[in-house]
Amino acid sequence: MSDYLKMSREELAEEFKSVRHEYEHLRGLHLSLDMSRGKPGFDNMDLSGEMFDLVGNDTGFKNISGIDCRNYGGLDGLTELKTLFGKILGLQPDQIIVGGNSSLNMMFDTIAQAMTHGMGGEPWCKQDGLKFICPVPGYDRHFAVTEYFGFELIPVRMTPEGPDMNAVEELVKDSKVKGIWCVPKYSNPEGITYSDEVVRRMARLKPAAGDFRIFWDNAYVVHDLYDEGDRLLNIYDECLKAGNPDMPLIFASTSKITFPGAGVAVEAGSPNNVAMLKDRMKYQTIGPDKLNQLRHARMFRTVDDVKRHMKRHAAILRPKFESVISELVKQLSDTGIAKWTNPRGGYFISLDVLEGCAKRVEQLCANAGMILTPAGATYPYGNDPLDSNLRIAPSYPSVEEIKKASVVLCIAVRYAALEKLIAEKA
Amino acid sequence: MSDYLKMSREELAEEFKSVRHEYEHLRGLHLSLDMSRGKPGFDNMDLSGEMFDLVGNDTGFKNISGIDCRNYGGLDGLTELKTLFGKILGLQPDQIIVGGNSSLNMMFDTIAQAMTHGMGGEPWCKQDGLKFICPVPGYDRHFAVTEYFGFELIPVRMTPEGPDMNAVEELVKDSKVKGIWCVPKYSNPEGITYSDEVVRRMARLKPAAGDFRIFWDNAYVVHDLYDEGDRLLNIYDECLKAGNPDMPLIFASTSKITFPGAGVAVEAGSPNNVAMLKDRMKYQTIGPDKLNQLRHARMFRTVDDVKRHMKRHAAILRPKFESVISELVKQLSDTGIAKWTNPRGGYFISLDVLEGCAKRVEQLCANAGMILTPAGATYPYGNDPLDSNLRIAPSYPSVEEIKKASVVLCIAVRYAALEKLIAEKA
Repeated sequence: MSDYLKMSREELAEEFKSVRHEYEHLRGLHLSLDMSRGKPGFDNMDLSGEMFDLVGNDTGFKNISGIDCRNYGGLDGLTELKTLFGKILGLQPDQIIVGGNSSLNMMFDTIAQAMTHGMGGEPWCKQDGLKFICPVPGYDRHFAVTEYFGFELIPVRMTPEGPDMNAVEELVKDSKVKGIWCVPKYSNPEGITYSDEVVRRMARLKPAAGDFRIFWDNAYVVHDLYDEGDRLLNIYDECLKAGNPDMPLIFASTSKITFPGAGVAVEAGSPNNVAMLKDRMKYQTIGPDKLNQLRHARMFRTVDDVKRHMKRHAAILRPKFESVISELVKQLSDTGIAKWTNPRGGYFISLDVLEGCAKRVEQLCANAGMILTPAGATYPYGNDPLDSNLRIAPSYPSVEEIKKASVVLCIAVRYAALEKLIAEKA
Repeated sequence: MSDYLKMSREELAEEFKSVRHEYEHLRGLHLSLDMSRGKPGFDNMDLSGEMFDLVGNDTGFKNISGIDCRNYGGLDGLTELKTLFGKILGLQPDQIIVGGNSSLNMMFDTIAQAMTHGMGGEPWCKQDGLKFICPVPGYDRHFAVTEYFGFELIPVRMTPEGPDMNAVEELVKDSKVKGIWCVPKYSNPEGITYSDEVVRRMARLKPAAGDFRIFWDNAYVVHDLYDEGDRLLNIYDECLKAGNPDMPLIFASTSKITFPGAGVAVEAGSPNNVAMLKDRMKYQTIGPDKLNQLRHARMFRTVDDVKRHMKRHAAILRPKFESVISELVKQLSDTGIAKWTNPRGGYFISLDVLEGCAKRVEQLCANAGMILTPAGATYPYGNDPLDSNLRIAPSYPSVEEIKKASVVLCIAVRYAALEKLIAEKA
């Protein structure tokens, strides 16, 4: 492709004519496509169909400790799942709390607890002007939790190695800064895995707030698209070495391993943190759904079981990601109007278009029957100051749909860029 | 039996000799019995075994609205369960939020939300000296939630018709009083169902606090032991008539219909309250486990399905309750040292022993291998000022075990009473 930024006004007008023609053609197809949310597809969910046969009258309801999983009892989950997640996350089983179907819920509850009961210090709701660090682009539902609780959300830009640690190190000198949201492996939306250097600097932070916490949402810990997955340093080990064992709170879930709505979520951390969380949870709940935990425990007896399962997911997801990337390359390479990531795992691709064009691309796509995650969603308060970032979620539609959607997306990106460039030259 | 309170010192000593002999005999049997928690028995849980065959690869995963219950989406539960619970609770489907596996969790979360975001007014955590009304004897885990959040717990005595409404009406004149815990049908532990008069006075309360809420935990709404169940007036209708539609928050669950650890919980209320709760929940969670909801929806298609199922539960539970009552009658009638309730539903029997004797009875039972709910647990802070109330939970052990446990219990009650009466006459 030619570099749009070097085109004359006439060349731009010519290109726009052709792009507009193509766009109108696509619009005429009355497509109905959706790349807005990170939802697994039917075929992904079908991979876990056997789970329904693993707990029933024929199989019994007892876990390896002999607990009848139908009844009350057990606050922190089945022992075999603590062992399994411990191995996956590089932690001891007793550092793991296995919860219900939503790790977001565990993050929310942890912050809610800190609001009313503190995080080892004064309750956060008794303090004013609290702040939370939000690497951008990032996950809208993380940001929304801290927005709900009244934090000022401080964006920090992502680098190809993770959050800009110079900025983070500077920000934590402010005792009002209470935490940071991290998706350290295959980040949402860029698919970036934090480098060893970033993890180490994170672990060595010396925050002014003694109750500062790293919310380490390892949502895609086993979600590799290729045989060779990204490698992420163990944040707990690094924090322990740095004398900060209580700083990280680590989360994971099977939402994208088994079922988004009926998976099993995990929160983990230092013995201190786990004891504090359990002491609070005992007031909150009768305990998690142990039958659903038992289904998971019987399906995944070893980490190898999980890995095998994730390879089957990858076989379904990889062509979807590659379809998007290949269309981006085909239509947008060397145009100078778009940059994107090429993740080796996770659920998203991040696309940066010309400044001021993201909302327009979203609108053009919508008019052609294709729903994108709202532009801006990857920034605190839904406000991308450059109006440039778009999150592409290729997991839910079929490969055929993805291919069509990618064509629409790229045409829309070119359309919006040409509009802008032509207006600038007018 | 003779009236212990009218016995001479010699008669007491003679009786004590015989009771102690019997107690030592029981102790020698090395029993291991547990009547401490309201856990359903195996046979009760087995009644819901068919549920595991109702959701799987053969049956599909879509509810009546066509939602694939495996995936993300849906904050307030499946529409068919909203309809079902609406009928059970006498509410419209859109007044119902169907949640996860714990109604206690929904109560906790609602109060947590009020702490940080208020209940229509100033956040509760910004206010000092807040109070909560706790009918006694009552449910320890209710009291614990409000204790956790720092409320002063104000006990109000239960009458045979429900909480002493004179006291409640007086207390709500204090704007620091923010709510009351109620188990209005087959109350925990007494098995009392609130009279129409009590429900109407509750609905007509004019609390000084505009954000006062009745936590109406209708935990035993369909949990009759006999064909003719107790009748409870509809709190929402009464509140509506009284101009207090937003005052009640109504809870229920299937914990003792299907599975204690894997049931479905419900929170309900006025349109205002439901809108407020949903607006807060959207930050907290990805939504409930819809597959478990689907299992419930397919098992209980009508209220009649639920009623038939509850009759099967009752057939198992009734002999257990009757075994306890019959031993209480046999050993303690007319002794003047014990009073008990004779519930027609629910999960508990309440036993009042001589003042100052409840802890001793608990201890004597424990020494003979029988675990009771800790004496005092039915009072705020675990402190029964009269040391008189014991909660008997006959659901979990077998009828054979219940019979043995009841003998131990009654002997322990007589033992402790005789110790006290003899000491008083010394």
